[in-house]
Amino acid sequence: MNILVIHGSNLNLLGTREPEAYGTTTLDQVNEAIVREAKELGYETAIHQSNHEGVIVDLLHEAIGSVVGAVINPGGYCHTSRAIEDAISAVDYPVVEVHMTNIHAREPGPISYTAIPSVGVIAGFRKDSYVLGIRALHLFLQTARTG
Amino acid sequence: MNILVIHGSNLNLLGTREPEAYGTTTLDQVNEAIVREAKELGYETAIHQSNHEGVIVDLLHEAIGSVVGAVINPGGYCHTSRAIEDAISAVDYPVVEVHMTNIHAREPGPISYTAIPSVGVIAGFRKDSYVLGIRALHLFLQTARTG
Amino acid sequence: MNILVIHGSNLNLLGTREPEAYGTTTLDQVNEAIVREAKELGYETAIHQSNHEGVIVDLLHEAIGSVVGAVINPGGYCHTSRAIEDAISAVDYPVVEVHMTNIHAREPGPISYTAIPSVGVIAGFRKDSYVLGIRALHLFLQTARTG
Amino acid sequence: MNILVIHGSNLNLLGTREPEAYGTTTLDQVNEAIVREAKELGYETAIHQSNHEGVIVDLLHEAIGSVVGAVINPGGYCHTSRAIEDAISAVDYPVVEVHMTNIHAREPGPISYTAIPSVGVIAGFRKDSYVLGIRALHLFLQTARTG
Amino acid sequence: MNILVIHGSNLNLLGTREPEAYGTTTLDQVNEAIVREAKELGYETAIHQSNHEGVIVDLLHEAIGSVVGAVINPGGYCHTSRAIEDAISAVDYPVVEVHMTNIHAREPGPISYTAIPSVGVIAGFRKDSYVLGIRALHLFLQTARTG
Amino acid sequence: MNILVIHGSNLNLLGTREPEAYGTTTLDQVNEAIVREAKELGYETAIHQSNHEGVIVDLLHEAIGSVVGAVINPGGYCHTSRAIEDAISAVDYPVVEVHMTNIHAREPGPISYTAIPSVGVIAGFRKDSYVLGIRALHLFLQTARTG
Amino acid sequence: MNILVIHGSNLNLLGTREPEAYGTTTLDQVNEAIVREAKELGYETAIHQSNHEGVIVDLLHEAIGSVVGAVINPGGYCHTSRAIEDAISAVDYPVVEVHMTNIHAREPGPISYTAIPSVGVIAGFRKDSYVLGIRALHLFLQTARTG
Amino acid sequence: MNILVIHGSNLNLLGTREPEAYGTTTLDQVNEAIVREAKELGYETAIHQSNHEGVIVDLLHEAIGSVVGAVINPGGYCHTSRAIEDAISAVDYPVVEVHMTNIHAREPGPISYTAIPSVGVIAGFRKDSYVLGIRALHLFLQTARTG
Amino acid sequence: MNILVIHGSNLNLLGTREPEAYGTTTLDQVNEAIVREAKELGYETAIHQSNHEGVIVDLLHEAIGSVVGAVINPGGYCHTSRAIEDAISAVDYPVVEVHMTNIHAREPGPISYTAIPSVGVIAGFRKDSYVLGIRALHLFLQTARTG
Amino acid sequence: MNILVIHGSNLNLLGTREPEAYGTTTLDQVNEAIVREAKELGYETAIHQSNHEGVIVDLLHEAIGSVVGAVINPGGYCHTSRAIEDAISAVDYPVVEVHMTNIHAREPGPISYTAIPSVGVIAGFRKDSYVLGIRALHLFLQTARTG
Amino acid sequence: MNILVIHGSNLNLLGTREPEAYGTTTLDQVNEAIVREAKELGYETAIHQSNHEGVIVDLLHEAIGSVVGAVINPGGYCHTSRAIEDAISAVDYPVVEVHMTNIHAREPGPISYTAIPSVGVIAGFRKDSYVLGIRALHLFLQTARTG
Amino acid sequence: MNILVIHGSNLNLLGTREPEAYGTTTLDQVNEAIVREAKELGYETAIHQSNHEGVIVDLLHEAIGSVVGAVINPGGYCHTSRAIEDAISAVDYPVVEVHMTNIHAREPGPISYTAIPSVGVIAGFRKDSYVLGIRALHLFLQTARTG
Repeated sequence: MNILVIHGSNLNLLGTREPEAYGTTTLDQVNEAIVREAKELGYETAIHQSNHEGVIVDLLHEAIGSVVGAVINPGGYCHTSRAIEDAISAVDYPVVEVHMTNIHAREPGPISYTAIPSVGVIAGFRKDSYVLGIRALHLFLQTARTG
Repeated sequence: MNILVIHGSNLNLLGTREPEAYGTTTLDQVNEAIVREAKELGYETAIHQSNHEGVIVDLLHEAIGSVVGAVINPGGYCHTSRAIEDAISAVDYPVVEVHMTNIHAREPGPISYTAIPSVGVIAGFRKDSYVLGIRALHLFLQTARTG
Repeated sequence: MNILVIHGSNLNLLGTREPEAYGTTTLDQVNEAIVREAKELGYETAIHQSNHEGVIVDLLHEAIGSVVGAVINPGGYCHTSRAIEDAISAVDYPVVEVHMTNIHAREPGPISYTAIPSVGVIAGFRKDSYVLGIRALHLFLQTARTG
Repeated sequence: MNILVIHGSNLNLLGTREPEAYGTTTLDQVNEAIVREAKELGYETAIHQSNHEGVIVDLLHEAIGSVVGAVINPGGYCHTSRAIEDAISAVDYPVVEVHMTNIHAREPGPISYTAIPSVGVIAGFRKDSYVLGIRALHLFLQTARTG
Repeated sequence: MNILVIHGSNLNLLGTREPEAYGTTTLDQVNEAIVREAKELGYETAIHQSNHEGVIVDLLHEAIGSVVGAVINPGGYCHTSRAIEDAISAVDYPVVEVHMTNIHAREPGPISYTAIPSVGVIAGFRKDSYVLGIRALHLFLQTARTG
Repeated sequence: MNILVIHGSNLNLLGTREPEAYGTTTLDQVNEAIVREAKELGYETAIHQSNHEGVIVDLLHEAIGSVVGAVINPGGYCHTSRAIEDAISAVDYPVVEVHMTNIHAREPGPISYTAIPSVGVIAGFRKDSYVLGIRALHLFLQTARTG
Repeated sequence: MNILVIHGSNLNLLGTREPEAYGTTTLDQVNEAIVREAKELGYETAIHQSNHEGVIVDLLHEAIGSVVGAVINPGGYCHTSRAIEDAISAVDYPVVEVHMTNIHAREPGPISYTAIPSVGVIAGFRKDSYVLGIRALHLFLQTARTG
Repeated sequence: MNILVIHGSNLNLLGTREPEAYGTTTLDQVNEAIVREAKELGYETAIHQSNHEGVIVDLLHEAIGSVVGAVINPGGYCHTSRAIEDAISAVDYPVVEVHMTNIHAREPGPISYTAIPSVGVIAGFRKDSYVLGIRALHLFLQTARTG
Repeated sequence: MNILVIHGSNLNLLGTREPEAYGTTTLDQVNEAIVREAKELGYETAIHQSNHEGVIVDLLHEAIGSVVGAVINPGGYCHTSRAIEDAISAVDYPVVEVHMTNIHAREPGPISYTAIPSVGVIAGFRKDSYVLGIRALHLFLQTARTG
Repeated sequence: MNILVIHGSNLNLLGTREPEAYGTTTLDQVNEAIVREAKELGYETAIHQSNHEGVIVDLLHEAIGSVVGAVINPGGYCHTSRAIEDAISAVDYPVVEVHMTNIHAREPGPISYTAIPSVGVIAGFRKDSYVLGIRALHLFLQTARTG
Repeated sequence: MNILVIHGSNLNLLGTREPEAYGTTTLDQVNEAIVREAKELGYETAIHQSNHEGVIVDLLHEAIGSVVGAVINPGGYCHTSRAIEDAISAVDYPVVEVHMTNIHAREPGPISYTAIPSVGVIAGFRKDSYVLGIRALHLFLQTARTG
Repeated sequence: MNILVIHGSNLNLLGTREPEAYGTTTLDQVNEAIVREAKELGYETAIHQSNHEGVIVDLLHEAIGSVVGAVINPGGYCHTSRAIEDAISAVDYPVVEVHMTNIHAREPGPISYTAIPSVGVIAGFRKDSYVLGIRALHLFLQTARTG
């Protein structure tokens, strides 16, 4: 049972840039936490980072048939990408959107297009947004299985 | 170590009304899941439900000094209540906002005022939004303690 | 067969304040007209007035199981209350919204959130808005029974 | 004592088209109900249907001096016609606007220009919107006579 | 040399309805003033009133080839009619738009679509708006002839 | 098998007015092209032009039962007519909307109400918009027949 | 001669929470300043704090007949409460709205519904907003008495 | 009997700059036409040009008591000046606003604040806008005198 | 200790124009009240009136170093002047904005740019707005001195 | 003579995903229909699908000099891509935009940036949108050649 | 060869006020840099500062015939002045707009009316905005001369 | 000391397409001017062109540590790309945004997201926008070094 994890635009700089906004945790440390949580709940993970909108769409498409769900942090693309929104609608597995910061607190009212077709959204818990995202996906899949 | 849990307007009807939208889980069953998760993580819970905006403000005020954090589902008040928003800003403990449904998917773009001063938001996982909320609060408190 | 009647915010002042806008009929006189019309059509009425949003939500909840329908004039809450809107959606009996004044004529375009889940709206006929509301509810229930 | 009744655009198709939205009652059956209610309250009725904005304005003008009031369902013209709005303002008899469906429940907030100069609005009770409209006009005229 | 004059919706009621807003001058008296001014400046006039958007479009079309210009008061259609706007753009003679009241003074900022393709607009001088309109058209035609 | 073709407001002036915007093809030449294409695909055509919103609604109604579909260019009414929009929704045959110019290219973003209930829209190909409209209707009807 | 003073939502926390925004003055100290200023000008004061919208409406109603005016700081309710706005319109004594902070300086332009029916607004002078409010009410009453 | 004429910002450049937009008529030639028309109708004129908003307000104030009316072309200030708008409201003589170009035809919908308190507006007739303005003022004054 | 007082556009007409809106008090009488209140609190006043935006900016600049604060009623410039707003931000003394009328009550929601950098705003108390403004400035200066 | 055909984001999933919205026709079947129609009209086709905005821009650039026109379905990029819009403006061959669904019918009014510089738009005819697009391009090229 | 340089509102305070926002460079030092750069490129400069909108319009007018171009920092007037915008359009020499701060970075999206008719805009480089402005004007004039 | 130069979408077509809007200078000629100016000021340049949003983000990331600043013309991406905006915020070197045309002059008010985190913007000077951009970056770096 595999979970796809996608880090969107600029998340490769995590921990080394703007630590006052995003903390000092690096993307590698985030990925360790993701792998640990997933393993504990019984999942393998395939983790990708890309600054390309089209690559993110391709990753979502290519995972069809091989994953039970996905956790995605689209980065800045959540505000603009109808293409990723359509891809999340099109794939046959559930997607959980996560954000490290509380996108509701930024002015003037951020809107996430990619959140619309997602199962749900978790925002504001820094690195733990991902850990909670893995768990949320797990709980969602359990509920789907057991009704 | 206590956690305050507040269910806002109309959540007392959970499970018995509009099951196609909110599922058949009752508020009592939600509360059992909350208590179980909290206990497992080492917390006591004080759980309230109210349809009154002012009562919710009072509950947030009265918990000052006796809780380490709160999980709140404001119900319909998330869209309109500046008073609850101000109360969340004013209290000295972290608050996690949860919603059973994915509020991002509803047209035309729901805005949660109460999410602004909250630590973060978890929306879309039905009953498990609360379970994840308790865990998110726990992770937040751990990070705050350990830096 | 009972009908719930709710008068919302500031309607307790009816007849004694701002008569040029709302007429000199008092709330007691309105209630007499409501009771008379209801009795003539074969209904008992339970009439309440409250300036509290939460109390109005509670009244709608508590009437589940004991009324065949409700007539509500939310007063100023029609413009702001998602909580009452959600309550009207949640209850299992039909609700008719009435206003004494023509809310469409006020600038710049009043919107009633509570009207959305209501069966219909009657606005502009002063006291008779209530009388017509009782009759509208009666006709709605008859149609529902006879198909 | 005559009442003018105007059915606006597309209402000639009533009952034979889109029954899931507007029911199976035909315009003739609606008119029978209107005549019956009016007769019971002591009025003659002159009933017209037109898909032409200008014809509706003409009908309102021509009725000056021969009717005590009017009941109008402008159909789609309620959203666009300043000409009918001006005509309702100009005539010297009261006009009640009715709609078979609850126009408040449609997204994103329908506005009726023709409702502004009308005495009041009744919306959402299918055929009975007209019956209630006749009665509302009657109550309005009674109040106007008796103060 | 002929001038087409068109009175739009509800202007047939002029002088007999709402005199506090539009004065007691009747449409016949307005027309006398128009004819007098036009005759003095050397023009014949063809004057029409219609409450029908389509008829106004037809009148504008049919005057092609037989008039040197037109003065139009579209009434309420100035706010809504793209069809009349397109007709004014399409005809090969200049059109002056007039209004008896100062449309700029009404809240919240009236927009006249029909004014866009017109040569110019004169608003606010009651009956004299027409007299000035005839003169404005005359001056415009003179300038066009003499360069 | 008949197809209804409606030319809306100002299209009677086609070819003789504003040729720089709409070309020099006359409405008669457009109609010849329509008849030729329809005949080639096996259809009779009933072609109408009107500047009257109400007449267009009537034409759509009267064609019920005698046509297999319609091609309509509403002209300026596409931006304002809820009545025609409702009529297209109400009739039981498919309607294709066409425009000679690319309405998407005009500022600031034209919206066609009548396009909403139509099967589809073809805009920007001058006279050929109609030819393509006939063919589009034909393809739609074929698909509907063959699944 | 009595003056009603109402502190709205979250003002009970004054001085102990967010001192960087609201100062360290407690509500008791504010009240002492209010009582001192009022006494100096010859008034008794009845001071209330509530986080409940409905309670504030009730307080305004119940003071009818026993006070010469009111000073109100609605807190967050100034942005949302039509019910309090209506209550201020309905009571027969003048109301002065005060805010401790300059609500005009906050982005993006705060609007106070409750300010509309109030006599005037004083905002930005911390505790002294109340002191100035008492004096403003006094000056208003003097002017009303002496013309 | 004197008429005040004010040319607002940039009108001193008339005729020598941007002739394709404003023609080759100079301000002196415009003034000659104004004086001629005024003299013919029995008025003296006091003509001013200023690029200063405050000077225009002062001119309007200083003319109180010595003029029977004013004709003003505010230039670019019509779009922004609340101060001139207030001055036109405050003076005790009628003001006619004129524009050389059709301000309704410019995108995206120009609004003139100064037109609101003016008697009326004349726009689009180049130099003749002023000539018509003088005449419009004359007709307005005549009507005011004769009722 | 000097206070700068600035009366903005059109306030020189106070008392002699539009008394139904602004009362019959003249600017001289307002100034007497200002001087009296200021003297009582121990301040000299330098009072200016100007209809020129630039002059008001200059006055604010020139007072640097010689005043302890300012009271300003910008008149119509509060709605449009970024230049005065910037000047208030730039000077090193506190500024209190006053308005004689309740600017919150005017439709559709007036915004004061100049209020943003001001210490606070007092609006709605006619002449006493200035008296309260002087006192508010005094209280502000006292608080600033005593902490 | 070659035609470039571009399928934008997510169209590679056609037929296998969300068949209730997009039908069961696969992209290969769409391409067969495109090739057939093009061949019949005398064109070769170069068909591409990409989920990458930049790739689509590159494809449009690279086709300069080798194609007579293009048919593009930008997918979700039509709502957001200024880069593709600029590319369509920059290339020297005509582009026809097609959509399988009626983008006018989706709420709340979809806007296609890429449609602005295109020759025209065809939307709503499923697979046949492409077939009609090829034919529309052919008719456009014929008209361009023959004038 | 002369260049006109205009410093708009509040720039006279440069260097002595709000140094954290605008730096400690005084206007004299800015002017020295301007003169040095201009001399190096072969220009004389005429430098003015004014807080008066009308004076800035006058300066632009008076320079006609004596300068080859202008560099202007309108200060706060860039957001509001249609009069200066019109003046820049009217003069026959090129104008470069400069700002010391990056006006694009300020919320919520500043718009400069005066930038519209300017040749170009340089914003964000403090004092060097002027130096770059002189150079930009020089390069523009060179290109204009050499084609 | 290296400077990164990025040309965004469609700039590869410079000089060969739409010369009336962008001139006949090719991208190679622009680059020569950039290299010459940079060399004169003592910098090496690394110049890239890409039509891919993601590639531009990658280029900005990869330059960290090896450049002292960047000059970027994002092309159409300035209006839509939050990803490039975030990347400019994230890198540790200053970025200057340039545009060949005056983006302020285009209707209806273009907004550049990428300009927000940039140091400043230079727009409207065709090829010289780049030359000025290199110089602006140089002046910025000098100021940063010397304080």
